Amino acid sequence: MKLIIDAMSGDKAPGEIILGGLLGGAEYRVNLIFCGDEERIKKELQLRPHGIKLSNIEILPANGVISMEDDPLSVLKSKKNSSMGAGLTALKEGRGDALLSAGNTGALLMGSTLLLKRIRGIKRAAIGSVLPAKVPTLLMDAGANVEVTPEFLLEFAIMGSVYMQRLYGLKSPRVGLLNNGTEACKGTPAHVEAYQLLQACKNIHFVGNIEGSMMPFGHCDVLVADGFSGNVCLKVLEGVGKYLFDSMKESLLSTPASRIGAMMAKRQFKQLKRKFSADEYGGAPLLGVSKPVIKAHGSSEALAIKHAVRQAKIFYETGVIEEILNLAKGV
Amino acid sequence: MKLIIDAMSGDKAPGEIILGGLLGGAEYRVNLIFCGDEERIKKELQLRPHGIKLSNIEILPANGVISMEDDPLSVLKSKKNSSMGAGLTALKEGRGDALLSAGNTGALLMGSTLLLKRIRGIKRAAIGSVLPAKVPTLLMDAGANVEVTPEFLLEFAIMGSVYMQRLYGLKSPRVGLLNNGTEACKGTPAHVEAYQLLQACKNIHFVGNIEGSMMPFGHCDVLVADGFSGNVCLKVLEGVGKYLFDSMKESLLSTPASRIGAMMAKRQFKQLKRKFSADEYGGAPLLGVSKPVIKAHGSSEALAIKHAVRQAKIFYETGVIEEILNLAKGV
Repeated sequence: MKLIIDAMSGDKAPGEIILGGLLGGAEYRVNLIFCGDEERIKKELQLRPHGIKLSNIEILPANGVISMEDDPLSVLKSKKNSSMGAGLTALKEGRGDALLSAGNTGALLMGSTLLLKRIRGIKRAAIGSVLPAKVPTLLMDAGANVEVTPEFLLEFAIMGSVYMQRLYGLKSPRVGLLNNGTEACKGTPAHVEAYQLLQACKNIHFVGNIEGSMMPFGHCDVLVADGFSGNVCLKVLEGVGKYLFDSMKESLLSTPASRIGAMMAKRQFKQLKRKFSADEYGGAPLLGVSKPVIKAHGSSEALAIKHAVRQAKIFYETGVIEEILNLAKGV
Repeated sequence: MKLIIDAMSGDKAPGEIILGGLLGGAEYRVNLIFCGDEERIKKELQLRPHGIKLSNIEILPANGVISMEDDPLSVLKSKKNSSMGAGLTALKEGRGDALLSAGNTGALLMGSTLLLKRIRGIKRAAIGSVLPAKVPTLLMDAGANVEVTPEFLLEFAIMGSVYMQRLYGLKSPRVGLLNNGTEACKGTPAHVEAYQLLQACKNIHFVGNIEGSMMPFGHCDVLVADGFSGNVCLKVLEGVGKYLFDSMKESLLSTPASRIGAMMAKRQFKQLKRKFSADEYGGAPLLGVSKPVIKAHGSSEALAIKHAVRQAKIFYETGVIEEILNLAKGV
């Protein structure tokens, strides 16, 4: 398998992106194409860890990078030759099998949808984000579609279900609907109708509405949401986690006894913080697009990129997209 | 001031409700009317802590209680004489100045809106919930209106602003809009339009869009939201807090060293947990209704009820409703 990596996008690009790519490529035997500034990529490749070979590495030269502030459309227009734009074109032309980028989410989504096209039969692509809950929970949609119809929500459920089957080996992933109550009548009219569609669908295992307070406790494997409240859910989770760890640190450093206590339990705090970190889960798949595209977090370091390489490989090799295409025909 | 308390609603009613009411009534010099089963209320009053007098306490006998599963409309129909129904009627008739209930939110909201009526000029009542963030942040709406117009969101901002001025003594509360990005163009069409209305409104201090991840860090004093994503925000906050405290406890008990460490930092953990607990903040005001109504959390214990008594007193005595009425004329 050959993975195209946007080497220039992300807060820690190109250094951490290239290092993570190399580590993942070596460990999971994935061939790589790095897109971006040729000189900088070559320089980073020279700094590679001992023992990593460059025989399966290519460079695809590109000009510039799409920033977080750039208009998403720029990936198809003024910045078509940026690292992300060139990567998307290379994927479209079949020079690689999948694309990984830590760049501007809107641009990656728009570029993927318009250049690679959606899977036949799928009306909307969505961003799947694996939440660090008691069991890994795929949030679908994490922010691509702020307004949805009941049919979009059903598509998100089916695509998310296939992804969790293939990526996590779950036989029958439990699908829940993010809502403001557990009763079937809860939510907006779109949610009420979606509940009925989800319950009637034979291709998924629907377990009902999930309230925000239930989310961390592993009640479902796929959490279906409109992109607006899905985004609120994901970001509140991130924000509250950071706030609590920060507050705890401050509180534990406040007295000599608590400082000693904190030292004695240091390993446990680190474990918990790591368990709660997005880095462990790789990136977010763009589901509904005709080729495998993975969005890594903008702040990704090498470890997160390494995990995302493994994820891209499984995403590609287990035929997630072919299975979504099959199921979409039947919807 | 005379506060009507629904003595029978809530997981720990009537015991904790009555105890909290008595403690709050004594400390903040508030006269009380307890609504509910006369015999049970009398029995609880006999068990009161030493030194609390009953001279300013009345009992309003009522039959039955509205459960969490009851249809909200039942408060006006089959369960009109329940503790909540009788309390609402007493408030309407002017037998008390404000109402406090830990019961079914939907029923309390519907009963308040239909029986007490909305403030003239206000189109929708909303549930304000004080989030345990770095600074107390009033979420408006926490779940009453799953679908909103830009005008509703503006009303929520104005009402929340008055409440935070009067209850927390803030001169010019900062108002933020819960959204999926900070740029003015983010969100649904209703959010985009609301951004413009909020920015143009002279009666509030609008500070822009607030993402979920910013929420805990004190960027605003009033967080305006549609009731659906507001509810997701509130409940994810609760759920993640509980999940992290549970995980930490489990993790800290896992080795002898970490157990000792946890013991040495016990006070800090307790402080943090308390800071993050809803009990410290009393209840959620129903804003937009013509009389002060406060919804306490269903799991409220005496301490939460005591705080809610104080809150009801300030809500009533600082003229929040009169000020909303004044401002609503100008909208």
